[in-house]
Amino acid sequence: MTDHAPPGLSLGPGPEFDLIREMLARWGHRAVGVGDDAAVLDVPRGDKLVVSVDAAIDGRHFKRDWLGAREIGYRSVTAALSDLAAMAAHPLGILVALELPEARRAALADLADGIADAVDAVATRILGGNITASDRLGLTTTVLGSAFAPLTRSGLEPGHSIYVTGRFGGPGAAVGAWTSGRMPTPEQRERFARPVARIRESLWLADHGATAAIDVSDGLAADLEHLARASAVGIDADLSLLPLTPGVIDHIAAAASGEEYELVIGSRVSMDTREFERRFGIPLTEIGHATSRDGAVQFRRGHERVAKPEGYDHFSR
Amino acid sequence: MTDHAPPGLSLGPGPEFDLIREMLARWGHRAVGVGDDAAVLDVPRGDKLVVSVDAAIDGRHFKRDWLGAREIGYRSVTAALSDLAAMAAHPLGILVALELPEARRAALADLADGIADAVDAVATRILGGNITASDRLGLTTTVLGSAFAPLTRSGLEPGHSIYVTGRFGGPGAAVGAWTSGRMPTPEQRERFARPVARIRESLWLADHGATAAIDVSDGLAADLEHLARASAVGIDADLSLLPLTPGVIDHIAAAASGEEYELVIGSRVSMDTREFERRFGIPLTEIGHATSRDGAVQFRRGHERVAKPEGYDHFSR
Repeated sequence: MTDHAPPGLSLGPGPEFDLIREMLARWGHRAVGVGDDAAVLDVPRGDKLVVSVDAAIDGRHFKRDWLGAREIGYRSVTAALSDLAAMAAHPLGILVALELPEARRAALADLADGIADAVDAVATRILGGNITASDRLGLTTTVLGSAFAPLTRSGLEPGHSIYVTGRFGGPGAAVGAWTSGRMPTPEQRERFARPVARIRESLWLADHGATAAIDVSDGLAADLEHLARASAVGIDADLSLLPLTPGVIDHIAAAASGEEYELVIGSRVSMDTREFERRFGIPLTEIGHATSRDGAVQFRRGHERVAKPEGYDHFSR
Repeated sequence: MTDHAPPGLSLGPGPEFDLIREMLARWGHRAVGVGDDAAVLDVPRGDKLVVSVDAAIDGRHFKRDWLGAREIGYRSVTAALSDLAAMAAHPLGILVALELPEARRAALADLADGIADAVDAVATRILGGNITASDRLGLTTTVLGSAFAPLTRSGLEPGHSIYVTGRFGGPGAAVGAWTSGRMPTPEQRERFARPVARIRESLWLADHGATAAIDVSDGLAADLEHLARASAVGIDADLSLLPLTPGVIDHIAAAASGEEYELVIGSRVSMDTREFERRFGIPLTEIGHATSRDGAVQFRRGHERVAKPEGYDHFSR
């Protein structure tokens, strides 16, 4: 780090200074701190600190011909911020470590703008970063938040209702289209390229009786299993109740679609789904309930039992 | 993140689970948290949160034939922790994002042990992480600390004394030897492979009158300039006073040697250097003082004025 750098933006001498200056010019007031070896910030008194790190790598988490640089910046940071939503934490800020190939030098401004978009979407700040020359584009994002009573995966009790935010299937359908040489519909592409970290929704849900949460990154079916296992309960879920992204018709495929970044929550009380939809413009839908301790996750489509929806995977594996 | 994972260790389904299990087995009690989407921790009431991120990439920050995997893990995390030392912050924990090539799969245990060594050296914890398949080995480390009154680069006033911890020149001499096809001496190699994050030293110095600090990553001469500029003062430094790593004879080269991770501090009072050396086993040496506001950094060797020592650079640039 040098005194040219924003808080925590560490970098040796060399032409990379120009890269930092370019990003700082884009970020403006969003980059805050004292320009020192590390950034210094306050955690609200009585709150816990909530932290997580997430990487998005070209060729593994996205492909260049699918997304523009601004979308890549936005999506990478949003995916990391989604972990704060899963904990019902208020964002305190992010740190971004960027690996930038020389050949993609011209994409820096758009990447910086996309990072700024993600930060603006949840009204947070950039507390530091790092740039390294690389053979491929990559963003590693650390997210910091605070919460008085974080939601966890282990807070689900038998009898609790299971709700999901939003509509499912878009990202899976988009990746499916691209990998088959087709173009996804605009709605499906948008759900892949511009997911939303459900921070405001999560804070509202935690205030209205939610006791457990997880964000959907591996696919709803897989993440329901994670939730059940962490809480040592079973779950009975009717996938036919799942709201679908326009153009998606298969509820089973939608339950296998990953990187949705919607929330699954458990609640001991009935939620006012109409008020939620009015407030946030997306549905909140009860899809099932938790069953006895150490039960399994039972997937249904109406009255029909179905096998666990599988199939979503990182495209590059 | 899944429920198999430790706090914040996020990973999709697949064989990478085995990688996580292997690291967790190595880390044991050092990996702490609730195994959720993010780790949850306390910041001491009244303290500021101090955060920074740093990346170490194969071929750029180290070479495989110079260091073993355990040293790579240790050195990468220690370099990041050094930013907490520069702020006189107590470590709260680290998050590690690892990029691991398939061909280096067998190095994982040693990398994990090296990360554990670095964490043990400053008595902190692993709060989360991420693993991604990659073409080259890389570690991005986020460090979290807390401090009631962090030291900064801007706390230097005219008349303050400038001290340095430790002995200089080892890492530069080691890199110089390797890049010339020679072997460094054991002491020089050790200083490159096993730097120390001067956390305990920094806390003691802050308690005994230090008001400004920076860690030496770009070379002492460059980092003195950073300190002077951030504080808007000048500095007069006599490089002949600099203690040298055994085998290093050139004070000018030692002042250009980077990645020392020793501390430069400014103090309004005279330090008890004998007590410091007794306590920490390394020298604390006064090498100059701060001069008038907006002065330049003047380098001397005894009474002889010398040009700014330059030459250290990442070997790969």
